[in-house]
Amino acid sequence: MVIGGDAAGGSAASQARKRCADLDVVMFERGRATSYSACGIPYWISGTVESEAALIARTPDQHRAMGLDVRMRTEVTGIDLDRRTVTWRDLDGGGQGSEPFDELVYATGSVPMRPPVPGIDADGVYGVQVLDDGVALRAELDSGRVRRVVVVGGGYIGLEIAEACRVRGLDVTVVDRSATPVGTFDPDVGQFIADAVRAEGIELVMGEEVVAVDVGTDGRARAVLTAGGRELPADLVVLGLGVRPNVGLAREAGIPLGISGGIAVDARMHTEAEGVWAAGDCVESRHRLSGQRMVVALGTHANKQGRVAGINIGGGYATFPGVIGTAITKVCDLEVARTGLSSEEAQQAGYAFVTASVDSTTTAGYFPGAQPIRIKMIAERRSGRLLGAQVVGCPGSAKRIDALAVCIWNEMTVDEVLSLDLAYAPPFAPVWDPVLIAARKAFEAVEADVRDL
Amino acid sequence: MVIGGDAAGGSAASQARKRCADLDVVMFERGRATSYSACGIPYWISGTVESEAALIARTPDQHRAMGLDVRMRTEVTGIDLDRRTVTWRDLDGGGQGSEPFDELVYATGSVPMRPPVPGIDADGVYGVQVLDDGVALRAELDSGRVRRVVVVGGGYIGLEIAEACRVRGLDVTVVDRSATPVGTFDPDVGQFIADAVRAEGIELVMGEEVVAVDVGTDGRARAVLTAGGRELPADLVVLGLGVRPNVGLAREAGIPLGISGGIAVDARMHTEAEGVWAAGDCVESRHRLSGQRMVVALGTHANKQGRVAGINIGGGYATFPGVIGTAITKVCDLEVARTGLSSEEAQQAGYAFVTASVDSTTTAGYFPGAQPIRIKMIAERRSGRLLGAQVVGCPGSAKRIDALAVCIWNEMTVDEVLSLDLAYAPPFAPVWDPVLIAARKAFEAVEADVRDL
Repeated sequence: MVIGGDAAGGSAASQARKRCADLDVVMFERGRATSYSACGIPYWISGTVESEAALIARTPDQHRAMGLDVRMRTEVTGIDLDRRTVTWRDLDGGGQGSEPFDELVYATGSVPMRPPVPGIDADGVYGVQVLDDGVALRAELDSGRVRRVVVVGGGYIGLEIAEACRVRGLDVTVVDRSATPVGTFDPDVGQFIADAVRAEGIELVMGEEVVAVDVGTDGRARAVLTAGGRELPADLVVLGLGVRPNVGLAREAGIPLGISGGIAVDARMHTEAEGVWAAGDCVESRHRLSGQRMVVALGTHANKQGRVAGINIGGGYATFPGVIGTAITKVCDLEVARTGLSSEEAQQAGYAFVTASVDSTTTAGYFPGAQPIRIKMIAERRSGRLLGAQVVGCPGSAKRIDALAVCIWNEMTVDEVLSLDLAYAPPFAPVWDPVLIAARKAFEAVEADVRDL
Repeated sequence: MVIGGDAAGGSAASQARKRCADLDVVMFERGRATSYSACGIPYWISGTVESEAALIARTPDQHRAMGLDVRMRTEVTGIDLDRRTVTWRDLDGGGQGSEPFDELVYATGSVPMRPPVPGIDADGVYGVQVLDDGVALRAELDSGRVRRVVVVGGGYIGLEIAEACRVRGLDVTVVDRSATPVGTFDPDVGQFIADAVRAEGIELVMGEEVVAVDVGTDGRARAVLTAGGRELPADLVVLGLGVRPNVGLAREAGIPLGISGGIAVDARMHTEAEGVWAAGDCVESRHRLSGQRMVVALGTHANKQGRVAGINIGGGYATFPGVIGTAITKVCDLEVARTGLSSEEAQQAGYAFVTASVDSTTTAGYFPGAQPIRIKMIAERRSGRLLGAQVVGCPGSAKRIDALAVCIWNEMTVDEVLSLDLAYAPPFAPVWDPVLIAARKAFEAVEADVRDL
């Protein structure tokens, strides 16, 4: 039995069924869609992606055709680990019941973080977590009543939604308590993001804590108030503060959580409760560099984890080896990506390190269409081990992070990285790829640091 | 002392001088330019790159400003290892002389392969190896006398030159004895390249050996004749058969060559002759997968090898760890890249393997501008170790080869590859990046093969 029919749940259910055809698989989903791309919602809201249907990788009927028993708009209300049953209720029809299970996959995803401030539950305040949120938000925008949008939180999702609203011609303000947007980047890289956001005509209010949502007599949000005394008028407020794992049911049922607040799982995605598996935004993963357990809500992990759980349930063997914090996004034409640890994360994990940044071009500098790219590397002192990398630049820049992610995954030193046999031809890279130049400069920084020791 | 002032020689000279300021560095260059991008020549011929000067990374005067004694248009005619001198002659002035050295860097590059057929030395037959070749070829094209071009050889340089001529509106025919162009790709991938070349209006004559160049009474090439009896009329013939290391001087001097015909060097780029270093297209490199020594003429290796030689001469320590056969090119809008071993190379190296190919998209499938990409993987039987990968697709495809190159460099198995934390967001990749899908499919092929053993 699977609770949650999106990336993790859908993958687990279909893999288990594929491996073991006589398995009865019931999948509960409280929303109206299965297996959709939550990450695509901002692009549907902006109109970049034309139809909501395009976001759906597999419909309930497609899952059914694969032999799954899919129960849509059905919320699981309780899990009884001793009796091996779940209770559920039909959100539309109102019926309820219970269902037995041998093995359970907990894949409930995440819920948007809501700052505990007055007015946050008013009408006109939206999260953007599930497809139904996106539908509601888009209906608001389509209504024509909205002119001013305030986005609370300048992380990935906050900026993506802000850009989507701006593309639709609205006045958009993003407010965040950090000094630069997307706080998982180093501030010097974050500054490029801030500049790109402002260049799009989005107002960026950084270093300001939200203290309240001002609510009108109609019960609807009308402004966001900050600790610094600002009043940001809003016809619509969107929460872009990130998400927390949706673990309420698990906690009540006694499925143990980890130190991060996500469900604790082993490498096979099995929880500490017998016969209970978990995958996706609700679980915690091991960061391979820091060793810490953390919740990383990202569709690509959810799919992999769901696949691993499904293979194991179906009688196979697979493991999820952890994450290294790779992420990518774009703000208009500015691409940004990161992998490994940021400077702040490296410090928190106890590493001593040096950094190096280089400015180069995406193709040979003399090639028409050469675009600027900046790569920053964080390397451990003495060993020169690559701990983290950040890329910022014009189109063609950010996917270079993948090569660096593989370097970090394999615990390469920057000295090793600079010798890599990466692809070179003038339309694709300078003769020293920016990745190699950055490694060279980081290596020089490591050497200079060793001399100073 | 450095013989050759392009990528390898220039890098070696400048690194040595940088590390050791009291070193007297003399650099001989028989051409008219130093440190230029040979790989950029086709794009200058086509007009994509506007000026010849743009191809030059560092002029003789820039080298001189760094403290190098640069002797342009000066050909080294002999090396005396016992007396530690070289003899030279001035190609313009006609003078000659000799010069002593303590340490020598041999960086003479490569020469185009010329099929030993009648007429190959006629007027109107051009190689495209050094910048002066490009200048001569471009002058021919600019003269307006040329309408029909035959390119002998359908490898990287052959196709790049063919496209350059086609962009200039000429009738272009490429003739090659292989079944598909760029024989370092598997034939199924090569077929995509063939289709793209033909779609550009270039005639492709495959599976035909060139037996002669027909020469007119004016001493100029007028057609290329093939073993199959074809006569391909040509106002101009370009040799795109690849290159061989330029080792004549070394052979005469007694600097030992390796089994591949390139100069044998150790990891520090030192030859088997005391105090003699070598770098660039004229040396052989170790292929990290096959263990074989081979000559790979590529600017990115030349730069790295030159840097390594220069650091060692300057009193530092650096090594060149070998190559894995990464290469990339584009044919109009088709991008192709490879790394590791092709199927044929894997077989020759004694590996048993399985292959898997997947068709996917460069971004989320629903994202506007999603482009087709195909990735082929070659994985060792049983172990599942990734031996090679090939990428073919529309813009945004081919640089993904870098992540795969790093996987191969680190001897990852396809099972490990499929779990990698690569960057995901809808504008950059499907939720399963094509690299990961290909690894998943290759892993399934390895598993199926194990079951059949």
